[in-house]
Amino acid sequence: MERVPGSFGTSVSFALRIFQLGFSSTSLISMCLDYDFNELSGSCNAYVILWSILHTLADTYSVLLKQLPQKPRVLSIVLAGDVVLSFLSLSGACGAASATEMLLSIDEPMCGDKRCIKYQVSALLAFLCWALFLDSAIFNLWSLYSLFH
Amino acid sequence: MERVPGSFGTSVSFALRIFQLGFSSTSLISMCLDYDFNELSGSCNAYVILWSILHTLADTYSVLLKQLPQKPRVLSIVLAGDVVLSFLSLSGACGAASATEMLLSIDEPMCGDKRCIKYQVSALLAFLCWALFLDSAIFNLWSLYSLFH
Repeated sequence: MERVPGSFGTSVSFALRIFQLGFSSTSLISMCLDYDFNELSGSCNAYVILWSILHTLADTYSVLLKQLPQKPRVLSIVLAGDVVLSFLSLSGACGAASATEMLLSIDEPMCGDKRCIKYQVSALLAFLCWALFLDSAIFNLWSLYSLFH
Repeated sequence: MERVPGSFGTSVSFALRIFQLGFSSTSLISMCLDYDFNELSGSCNAYVILWSILHTLADTYSVLLKQLPQKPRVLSIVLAGDVVLSFLSLSGACGAASATEMLLSIDEPMCGDKRCIKYQVSALLAFLCWALFLDSAIFNLWSLYSLFH
């Protein structure tokens, strides 16, 4: 059986994971370092926990066990994780973008010291991260589908 | 071939669509009527246009042509629309929720006349709408999968 490029365990998938890791961690660092609103910190924390558990698991699998057998159960778990994380990263990105726009439109002094630019970059990175998670999910869905044909 | 309950053209799907219609229109009305920030109105408009085009098409199909042949092409289009709209409704809901929380935490007078409660209800309805779109997408994916087996 031919392997779908980008599906779990391939080198394209590894590259996707590395970019996801880079984008999401940069986004998280720039968002969480100096933010003082509880609701966004809370969502950041939920992010970090879920992301670190599911994502590092998938990374470890794809790096250490490079020639993984493509079992439907493993692929389903990875696919489910990708879908959940893509929704989470989209909601985080939208929340950050909306809050930043609100800060910019209401209260100019709130955006001192390039704070708002930081949050905008953070939201942009979270959006990019969402797009990469979506790519991973599509590749894994395709791979899962091709397992049965 | 047995029909998947909840897939395109069934009565469960029709009920899901009716609830989606109710939730999203109530959410939109309460969000757009008295909101004066451009970024949210813009996302509202994008919502309305996309939702009205894709969703009323699907509704008309499922109501008027009740015994639709389950063609893979039709199901794929409905599935794609559901996925896109579920992402859109999630992003709108998160944006509204985040903006409302920001309004509540920064500036108390901004939330006069039960304005913030309206927005919270609106965000809640948008979240419910997202959950229903996700249901529709899952049912249609299942139906599409069962077409090939």
